[in-house]
Amino acid sequence: MGKLQAGYLFPEIARRRAAHLSKNPDAQVISLGIGDTTEPIPDVITNAMAERARALSTVEGYSGYGAEQGEKKLRSAIASTYYKGLGIDESDIFVSDGAKCDISRLQVLFGSGVKIAVQDPSYPAYVDSSVIMGQTGLYDNQRYASIEYMRCDPQNGFFPDLSLISNADVIFFCSPNNPTGSAASREQLTQLVQYAKKTGSIIVYDSAYAMYISDDSPKSIYEIDGAREVAIEISSFSKYAGFTGVRLGWTVVPKELLFSDGFPVAKDFNRIVCTCFNGASNIAQAGGLACLSPEGLKAMQSTINFYKENTQIIMDTFTKLGFNVYGGKNAPYVWVHFPGRSSWDVFAEILEKANVVTTPGSGFGPGGEGFVRVSAFGHRENVLEASRRMSQLYK
Amino acid sequence: MGKLQAGYLFPEIARRRAAHLSKNPDAQVISLGIGDTTEPIPDVITNAMAERARALSTVEGYSGYGAEQGEKKLRSAIASTYYKGLGIDESDIFVSDGAKCDISRLQVLFGSGVKIAVQDPSYPAYVDSSVIMGQTGLYDNQRYASIEYMRCDPQNGFFPDLSLISNADVIFFCSPNNPTGSAASREQLTQLVQYAKKTGSIIVYDSAYAMYISDDSPKSIYEIDGAREVAIEISSFSKYAGFTGVRLGWTVVPKELLFSDGFPVAKDFNRIVCTCFNGASNIAQAGGLACLSPEGLKAMQSTINFYKENTQIIMDTFTKLGFNVYGGKNAPYVWVHFPGRSSWDVFAEILEKANVVTTPGSGFGPGGEGFVRVSAFGHRENVLEASRRMSQLYK
Repeated sequence: MGKLQAGYLFPEIARRRAAHLSKNPDAQVISLGIGDTTEPIPDVITNAMAERARALSTVEGYSGYGAEQGEKKLRSAIASTYYKGLGIDESDIFVSDGAKCDISRLQVLFGSGVKIAVQDPSYPAYVDSSVIMGQTGLYDNQRYASIEYMRCDPQNGFFPDLSLISNADVIFFCSPNNPTGSAASREQLTQLVQYAKKTGSIIVYDSAYAMYISDDSPKSIYEIDGAREVAIEISSFSKYAGFTGVRLGWTVVPKELLFSDGFPVAKDFNRIVCTCFNGASNIAQAGGLACLSPEGLKAMQSTINFYKENTQIIMDTFTKLGFNVYGGKNAPYVWVHFPGRSSWDVFAEILEKANVVTTPGSGFGPGGEGFVRVSAFGHRENVLEASRRMSQLYK
Repeated sequence: MGKLQAGYLFPEIARRRAAHLSKNPDAQVISLGIGDTTEPIPDVITNAMAERARALSTVEGYSGYGAEQGEKKLRSAIASTYYKGLGIDESDIFVSDGAKCDISRLQVLFGSGVKIAVQDPSYPAYVDSSVIMGQTGLYDNQRYASIEYMRCDPQNGFFPDLSLISNADVIFFCSPNNPTGSAASREQLTQLVQYAKKTGSIIVYDSAYAMYISDDSPKSIYEIDGAREVAIEISSFSKYAGFTGVRLGWTVVPKELLFSDGFPVAKDFNRIVCTCFNGASNIAQAGGLACLSPEGLKAMQSTINFYKENTQIIMDTFTKLGFNVYGGKNAPYVWVHFPGRSSWDVFAEILEKANVVTTPGSGFGPGGEGFVRVSAFGHRENVLEASRRMSQLYK
């Protein structure tokens, strides 16, 4: 624990935002910082949750402990909705209370003796959970010893040079990436899977933003041949259905994925889930099932489309101002380049002068220095107002 | 992972129950095995959850990520309901998705370098999470090396001889105990706290059954002077409000609890919670708040009283049959002695001959050998029928 740097990124941003507000109590702060959904959850989904909640007060509708792995119907719906034809079935799906929680459970599974590789920049929970599990050395020069930082930047099209990785047991790979918004192509993911096959690494593929993909980038790692033998996939309803507060996600551990001694990874993960977790809330699971009904899918898509329009507004704003802007097309995040500047300085400038919260790129790793991430999760009027303020600040 | 024995206890019981049912498809099996609540959740609580669920589809009622530590109102209600006058305030409370989940997060906090002590017998998650975290040696003679098993049996009134423990960094102590149903007295807990002060150990006090206490045993470790400097307390709405499927609990880490270098344990636990968890479901939290309203408290108490009547029925049944029966008074568990017999054999006998699922005592540690735990969580007619079958089987 002592090795961890300062606070976890998002609580740290919340702290700075609160400090700004205490100095400027009248500031109309708009948050495009933490990627937190803002739009109401479609009725068809909340009705199902309300109905399940009420049913819990009836003899017929009451249920206690569910399967730690999740309700059969939901596991089955996830498999058939997102993995049809990809060789993944219901028994490969573990329902969770969110991707972040399962990242930690996976780290508990891997233990302290493994070396991880992460995209640089990437979602900080991979690195922080690794440090907490004792997998790393000390922090120095913006890096922890014994973590492989796979640089992703405009020069390499945000896909790392895999030949530079040495000996990673576990590769965390998020596509579309948080924070860069970049989605890996089929060719790139094929390279990644082949690399893992060759080296015996396990890929932990985070597809929490897959439904934001607009082009023909794969939405699941299992679209790549052979991925079932090398990859775990984690995903979530958070950014699809606005479930950031409801808490529901899933992890796919295919039965074909084996440790080097031939033991199925899924068997060990199942044991972790049964010992360290008691299943996601039954009410949230009822919501998840409604998400995957035909009406639910349509409703989720329309929420996603709304955020994608926001993304376009933000991209247009920064592009017009002359910035180099990345991401956005396949993700609800816009990655704006401020070459030569410190991310935290830019963060502070935007907060203090425009009352807009962004996320400093360096919070996602050394490769994020000089960028800020602007999230498209916001009410339309806030996104428009933030864009006006940006145009004012950087005109 | 390889050191772990067979399955986690309760999934293993579920497996044996399923095997029995597949051999005897018409068997009317009654489960008094896993301590799973069976009675509907009172309306006042489910209505609050349904209302919160529906509100999530409105602009005003929507909320995304909440504080990882839980909603302020709920933390405050837990502090004032269960810890009034005990020096615990809202900021010491971490809301969780259940006690079992927080046991694992605490183990992640402690890391692989600590030695734990557990009551023997005790709830298996303490030991299994310790093994998974790499704190133990190999399993031999029903024990893991490097775990201290503190024997609790009829001879010592189910309170361990603390002078026999050597060097435990963390003492897991559950009172009322699962599975023995025994609650430690004020004098016993005072001994425990003084012992921890002397040795510098941290007590993890599991009070998940405290509301079942009928006598004057303490309901919280913080009723004992000095406990705030040595103890963490974990608890849950599961057995109070029937929230086994809804998932809501809490952990108290007092700010007075320090590591030997003076660093507050709460600061590190907060970091774990922020990195490895994203808060309990907002809908479940609305339910928790309703539980702690005056009507909610009354409704929970009446559910608890119902299970306590069940407990009495089970105790009377086994007592009449001439068994030595323990627990029951302060807990929803009856601990029945079958001297000289194997617990799993008794479990199998009761399952095969009476179609009743119990829990074999040895599943809770070597000190549970020769006992079975009978849970009082069941519909009244099932408890009565199970009692009739027991009377038949052991007449």
